[in-house]
Amino acid sequence: MASRQRDIAVSEFFLKNRHLLGFDSPHKAILTAVKEAVDNALDACEEARILPDIRVEVAQQEHDLYVVAVEDNGPGIVEQQIARIFGKLLYGSKFHELRQSRGQQGMGISAAGMYGQLTTGRPMRIVSRIDGDARASEMLVSIDTTKNRPDIHRRRKVPWRRRHGTRVEVEMEGHYSKGLHSVDMYLKQTAIANPHVTLRFVDPAGRTRVFRRSTEALPVLPRAIKPHPHGVELGRLIQMLHDSPSRTLRRFLEDDFSRVGPTTSRRIIEHTRGRLSERSNPRRIAHAQAMALHRAIARTRVSAPRTDCIVPIGETRLLEGLRKELDADFFAVVTRPPSVYRGNPFQVEVGIAWGQLGGAGLDVDTQGRIHRRRKRKAVRARAEDAPHTDKPAHVLRFANRVPLLYQQSTCAITRAITQTNWRAYGLKQPKRALPVAPMVIVAHVASVWVPYTSESKEAVAELAEIDRELVLALQEAGRRLAAHIRRERRLEREYEKRSYIESYLPHVGVALQAILQLSDRERDRDVARLDAILHRSRKP
Amino acid sequence: MASRQRDIAVSEFFLKNRHLLGFDSPHKAILTAVKEAVDNALDACEEARILPDIRVEVAQQEHDLYVVAVEDNGPGIVEQQIARIFGKLLYGSKFHELRQSRGQQGMGISAAGMYGQLTTGRPMRIVSRIDGDARASEMLVSIDTTKNRPDIHRRRKVPWRRRHGTRVEVEMEGHYSKGLHSVDMYLKQTAIANPHVTLRFVDPAGRTRVFRRSTEALPVLPRAIKPHPHGVELGRLIQMLHDSPSRTLRRFLEDDFSRVGPTTSRRIIEHTRGRLSERSNPRRIAHAQAMALHRAIARTRVSAPRTDCIVPIGETRLLEGLRKELDADFFAVVTRPPSVYRGNPFQVEVGIAWGQLGGAGLDVDTQGRIHRRRKRKAVRARAEDAPHTDKPAHVLRFANRVPLLYQQSTCAITRAITQTNWRAYGLKQPKRALPVAPMVIVAHVASVWVPYTSESKEAVAELAEIDRELVLALQEAGRRLAAHIRRERRLEREYEKRSYIESYLPHVGVALQAILQLSDRERDRDVARLDAILHRSRKP
Repeated sequence: MASRQRDIAVSEFFLKNRHLLGFDSPHKAILTAVKEAVDNALDACEEARILPDIRVEVAQQEHDLYVVAVEDNGPGIVEQQIARIFGKLLYGSKFHELRQSRGQQGMGISAAGMYGQLTTGRPMRIVSRIDGDARASEMLVSIDTTKNRPDIHRRRKVPWRRRHGTRVEVEMEGHYSKGLHSVDMYLKQTAIANPHVTLRFVDPAGRTRVFRRSTEALPVLPRAIKPHPHGVELGRLIQMLHDSPSRTLRRFLEDDFSRVGPTTSRRIIEHTRGRLSERSNPRRIAHAQAMALHRAIARTRVSAPRTDCIVPIGETRLLEGLRKELDADFFAVVTRPPSVYRGNPFQVEVGIAWGQLGGAGLDVDTQGRIHRRRKRKAVRARAEDAPHTDKPAHVLRFANRVPLLYQQSTCAITRAITQTNWRAYGLKQPKRALPVAPMVIVAHVASVWVPYTSESKEAVAELAEIDRELVLALQEAGRRLAAHIRRERRLEREYEKRSYIESYLPHVGVALQAILQLSDRERDRDVARLDAILHRSRKP
Repeated sequence: MASRQRDIAVSEFFLKNRHLLGFDSPHKAILTAVKEAVDNALDACEEARILPDIRVEVAQQEHDLYVVAVEDNGPGIVEQQIARIFGKLLYGSKFHELRQSRGQQGMGISAAGMYGQLTTGRPMRIVSRIDGDARASEMLVSIDTTKNRPDIHRRRKVPWRRRHGTRVEVEMEGHYSKGLHSVDMYLKQTAIANPHVTLRFVDPAGRTRVFRRSTEALPVLPRAIKPHPHGVELGRLIQMLHDSPSRTLRRFLEDDFSRVGPTTSRRIIEHTRGRLSERSNPRRIAHAQAMALHRAIARTRVSAPRTDCIVPIGETRLLEGLRKELDADFFAVVTRPPSVYRGNPFQVEVGIAWGQLGGAGLDVDTQGRIHRRRKRKAVRARAEDAPHTDKPAHVLRFANRVPLLYQQSTCAITRAITQTNWRAYGLKQPKRALPVAPMVIVAHVASVWVPYTSESKEAVAELAEIDRELVLALQEAGRRLAAHIRRERRLEREYEKRSYIESYLPHVGVALQAILQLSDRERDRDVARLDAILHRSRKP
């Protein structure tokens, strides 16, 4: 029996479990491949401080055979790295750094290639050029799945119209379709969360759709941080002590953690109650001493982690994005202050777009007069699905600026929305369900490490700390919406009253004229006065 | 930027994403560790044809510090393999074989060790002895997570009371609790699906609970199969051609696939329409030829895969298990014939236990008489949660005989139950929800490769083929339940009528006596006859 025990390559594992990577159906495959490639393209551009111009092409070869291509204007990839980046799972630059990025695990784009290879037997084609190089590198790469390493089928230099950038092409079995889980929808939502990006999409029919940037301002580049002492488990602390190049405990604490300076490190060491000193050698700390150190850290106040490792969309930009892509009556946007789970900083943002179809549509002018608005606006998250008042709210989920299109029901964001009491804000809400209202709820979780429910990064896992922040943001947005709804209802009631009054006011004028024996001019003046008084009586 | 690109060890990845392995909370950690160790113990015993005797201990060291130990009477592990089996993710004997087993991915028990190590800094302790060895091997093992390889801290020979078997101990941070997600519940459900197993559980309070086997018959040992040609994608076919030791296409087809003999291989080759011949060298087949071969395979009829690679619980044993652990009025058990997804054989079983609380509880005797039953039985899936008629059915999910305790809402089994129309069988059912009835639904998916929704193996992923089989099994069980419910209702109605008749029959007798001038004896005889006729008039 012993002889049958052997290593399992991580690529073999995911080939067999490709649904874990989002390649469970031909329908999902195309979208997942686009998503992984666009994620990488955006990360690369932003890191190189280039305004991203991304071109996505989905071309049909045969019945269910497609070529998915994504091309960016990023910095390009040095030739020696191309094969491993595209032909090896768990290889990348983002995993070991604590800062926000779209990619995390060094798996997505290679998985797309692996799926293409499985269904068509064809390698990926990559073209990449670095600024200053005379020509681009072209490479055909597949994965040797039994060993998780790249096979290079062709490598040559080619001329390319771009000065710098990367193009990746994957041939795969797939189904292309429109609707909720379409490439179109994914790109539209990407545009909402990334107003600095221009996306061009050429669909299988050859039509081009452009989502143009609304701002030239690149988001701030997140800065990497060290682990925060309060998020480190005992076992990890022991590992860090063991691996540290520091010669003294004090140096270790100050160099290997964020937010630990001379004062904090001294306090931590004091809290070990003499079991350890500033000069203790980190590599010679026994298990019991490490436990004492772990407890001492827990007892010491340490400032919250630096938060420039995460860059939220921001209230202004999120509102811009919403206004650009959704047509609604009322918007509320809430960005929570940064918070921490297991030492990982994260931040939550929520937006609400609301349009009461068939509702009042009234406005108050600067004179305090209530007018019926010209144009009835409606929330339109997608053209094909205008909201109805008897439908649940439409939810747009984002993690690190990436739209999440699948697994809505298992996502921590959905759970936070369904657990929020929307009845308190004047909305209908079936038990443990989404509120039933003509609105779109947008939620964004940004973190140095987003805890996803699976490697396909389709939903955020439930963690108490993240859940709490989501609920607080939703409640704040809900309160603002409630104030708006109350105001709308009051306006509507008053508008009705006024309409009555205005209809009868001329008759009142005629009656007053008869009783008080006024001239026509006096009558008209008094009617006008009455009208003004009635309008002003409304407290704006 | 290029210099920062690097390998990510699979252990680093899962340490950061430990929720994917079921270690997302201290509460879940203990149960997940027990589950992984028991899975391995049962697989090892059955493979060695030993009736499994498993001992599970959960001992509390300090407030939230526990030691989880699982000990089996299996064949033991050769010393050279111990470190890798327990100290390396993705290492095992079951991944590369197509046959049913509880473990699949060579990940679970090492993950438990990794979690223990992370939270306490302590290695696992393993004791294992092979029959015939004078002493057992004891080893302390941890995982070097940055390299995914074992660190051995101690290795020595020790005396051990068992002649053969394995004991694994993990110290970990955890919360121990009772209820739906408890070790107790997991063991009880394991007993239902594995009536040949004896489980002993020593809980943190030192109490021992025993789940004793109800049969001495070991389940048949599943036999490994080769891939079925109809489940092989083009890319995999190309890989297989390339890796094959066969010199001719015909040998390749007959040796590397299941269900391909001389006739089938000849037909497949004919279907390539001259593009390939029996003598073509598999290693020299070009891409276009491979595509032709792939199409030819799809066009050729091939017998369904052998199904002795899967061993369902079976209707008799499942019924035994249900009767042993549940107290109900009516049972229906359905084992579907084996089926295939992506070339992987699988089989579905469904059981229903039903007890109409507050219902009739009537029975028909051999004379056709309806009696009220002595004892009112009730479905009791768990002592602490007796069913109510206004509660949803209780669902017990199993995959390869392993109970699934988490992620019920995301599981294909739950989806199949909620998508079945239970109203057709006389039950209440809210839209897209579980039926509301005093019943327990048991479903088992057995396969050579169960597609789970995550590495923690808590839920079955949705695949059309599996979904279809589940629904068919549920419908069949539902029809039998409906027949039972109709019969119960009819009995109840008749019992009521009869009660009336029986109350009035003596009076009818007196009236008849007066009209027909009968003697007392004649009256009693006619009343008895009437009674018998009325009873028999019911069609049994």
